[in-house]
Amino acid sequence: MAMKSAASSTIRSLLSSSSSTFSRNLHAPAERKKIVGVFYKGGEYAKLNPNFVGCVEGALGIREWLESLGHQYIVTDDKEGPNSELDKHLHDAHIIISTPFHPAYVTAERIKKAKNLELLLTAGIGSDHVDLKAAAAAGLTVAEVTGSNVVSVAEDELLRILVLVRNFLPGYHQAVNGEWNVAGIAHRAYDLEGKTIGTVGAGRIGKLLLQRLKPFNCNLLYYDRLRMNPELEKEIGVKFEEELDAMLPKCDVIVINMPLTEQTRIAKCKKGVVIVNNARGAIMDTQAIADACTSGHVAGYGGDVWPVQPAPKDHPWRFMPNHAMTPHISGTTIDAQLRYAAGVKDMLDRHFRGEDFPEQNYIVKEGQLASQYR
Amino acid sequence: MAMKSAASSTIRSLLSSSSSTFSRNLHAPAERKKIVGVFYKGGEYAKLNPNFVGCVEGALGIREWLESLGHQYIVTDDKEGPNSELDKHLHDAHIIISTPFHPAYVTAERIKKAKNLELLLTAGIGSDHVDLKAAAAAGLTVAEVTGSNVVSVAEDELLRILVLVRNFLPGYHQAVNGEWNVAGIAHRAYDLEGKTIGTVGAGRIGKLLLQRLKPFNCNLLYYDRLRMNPELEKEIGVKFEEELDAMLPKCDVIVINMPLTEQTRIAKCKKGVVIVNNARGAIMDTQAIADACTSGHVAGYGGDVWPVQPAPKDHPWRFMPNHAMTPHISGTTIDAQLRYAAGVKDMLDRHFRGEDFPEQNYIVKEGQLASQYR
Repeated sequence: MAMKSAASSTIRSLLSSSSSTFSRNLHAPAERKKIVGVFYKGGEYAKLNPNFVGCVEGALGIREWLESLGHQYIVTDDKEGPNSELDKHLHDAHIIISTPFHPAYVTAERIKKAKNLELLLTAGIGSDHVDLKAAAAAGLTVAEVTGSNVVSVAEDELLRILVLVRNFLPGYHQAVNGEWNVAGIAHRAYDLEGKTIGTVGAGRIGKLLLQRLKPFNCNLLYYDRLRMNPELEKEIGVKFEEELDAMLPKCDVIVINMPLTEQTRIAKCKKGVVIVNNARGAIMDTQAIADACTSGHVAGYGGDVWPVQPAPKDHPWRFMPNHAMTPHISGTTIDAQLRYAAGVKDMLDRHFRGEDFPEQNYIVKEGQLASQYR
Repeated sequence: MAMKSAASSTIRSLLSSSSSTFSRNLHAPAERKKIVGVFYKGGEYAKLNPNFVGCVEGALGIREWLESLGHQYIVTDDKEGPNSELDKHLHDAHIIISTPFHPAYVTAERIKKAKNLELLLTAGIGSDHVDLKAAAAAGLTVAEVTGSNVVSVAEDELLRILVLVRNFLPGYHQAVNGEWNVAGIAHRAYDLEGKTIGTVGAGRIGKLLLQRLKPFNCNLLYYDRLRMNPELEKEIGVKFEEELDAMLPKCDVIVINMPLTEQTRIAKCKKGVVIVNNARGAIMDTQAIADACTSGHVAGYGGDVWPVQPAPKDHPWRFMPNHAMTPHISGTTIDAQLRYAAGVKDMLDRHFRGEDFPEQNYIVKEGQLASQYR
């Protein structure tokens, strides 16, 4: 895609509109910082797209800006173990930037080694890779780019629902393999229209998904700890379910949009249910999902989150029937990369100038856990 | 999917609520008809789903009803050449039912052989497999189940747009192949939000697609011979383009929703365009599409229609990069099958009783081509 849309060029210009900040700071940097960025490697793909800023080579598109301000910017994908590039720079790093797609695990032990550490930034959403209590105890600030990829994830959920309900993949495989067997696809391909879709959790992503589902003429349900505004419910056309266990058996499609602390309840779902989970891989009982897909109790399972990431080569979800799994990818589209790169840059800029971040970005603020994490 | 949704049970009951018709006709059939149905074979899949009525074995779920009325009902998938099962029954068949998914080609030659032929019914939409002029000259009636799968096709188009724009398939292949390389996916994965999507043709399917795209916050354009009602344009949030050639270069995604008689205009599209075509395979220059996908001028091509169906094993679209092709499938979901089976039954029932069909179903009415085919 040529990516010359209005939205992306706005973000793009935001990302590169640093000249004023640049000149404000160039001659009087408050302090030279050492910033370590840990991202996935672009490799052969790095040069294929100038907007591919989320990889090591792209480095969020902020190297020139940081270096012009006199800061040191180390970028690597080498993050595991005491001999990693990350560990080599821990002792004098002021700021570590990482992403959920290739997380630098900032453990209590690493925090202890990083004497100069002030700030941990997540390029994206989800800071599970940071030991938040240890970070708070050390007086650090942890922040992410709240909202930067909620649209990306919601779109991806709808994609996976359609892939599974419409039974797209067997047809694609026939096309690729020189086959033509309509029955092999059609016997389990359904319209989404008229089906009951329940989202477990209706926060920002869940709401965006529901809004996108509205014109499909489905029966939309949600379960959450908090009920949304009744007017919004009406606008979206969604019905609140007070009990998760009461909602599950009604659903043709279940989408997981909140971290569940309890075990999943596959047995309570109706036979032939489709499950989409882009929230957390560990929510699910790995083998139970694989078994249910094999038995047909679950007609399809899709998501981009795995209990361990990268998923091992022999992970059962790679081999079970009727899945729509990918590596952890839904929140790192080019558009999401441009948004979270711009968000990281904005926070760095504020940090250098001693200004606060947008309040919703904080996970830990100067040693205090944000309220939702307490 | 368990398929116990309200919509499907309504259709299901419609399909089986034949007892009143049954008793009205049982003792006084006007005339015993020979009906030949040509469908795709279900084979090993036929018994897996009681709603799988679109295959030979399912026979649209109308065998019991037809036979109880005293009619003869021959069903086969064997349709090619003079020794086919279809040809064997031509000489005394009164009614032929076929589908676009496994079309019985009713040529002038076959019409000449079928001395008793009165009625040709399409289970679904699209009667290209019938030589309409020859049918009209022979005084036949040709009708289809108008509207029976427009929702199915529109949903499928949105699915293919998402699969291609979000670059889903390389991630899926990594999951299956034991790999984990986020960059290999992310460097060409985009949000749909903010992109410009143009539909060439905004008839029933095009409108349903546009309605489903509305909450994605895209820039929606359409070209058609006729402009839609300005109020509907406003409601959907779509902009009319008077010139196809002026619309094409603006689009990140182009969806083909009308049979184009001219050559395609790939060169006019912007580099990196995504094209989805569920209308007709022959609209496209086969090799030009394959070349443009290989060069990257087209970032992705998806559809379920091929110039020849079944597509030959060596068709270039099976091998080109970044495609989302399947066999012709989008209009034969289980839901669509139930709708078109109900529509065929309704038309048979009316035919036996000498009543007219719903006007919009006619392609040829007693020897006269419907206005849009003249």
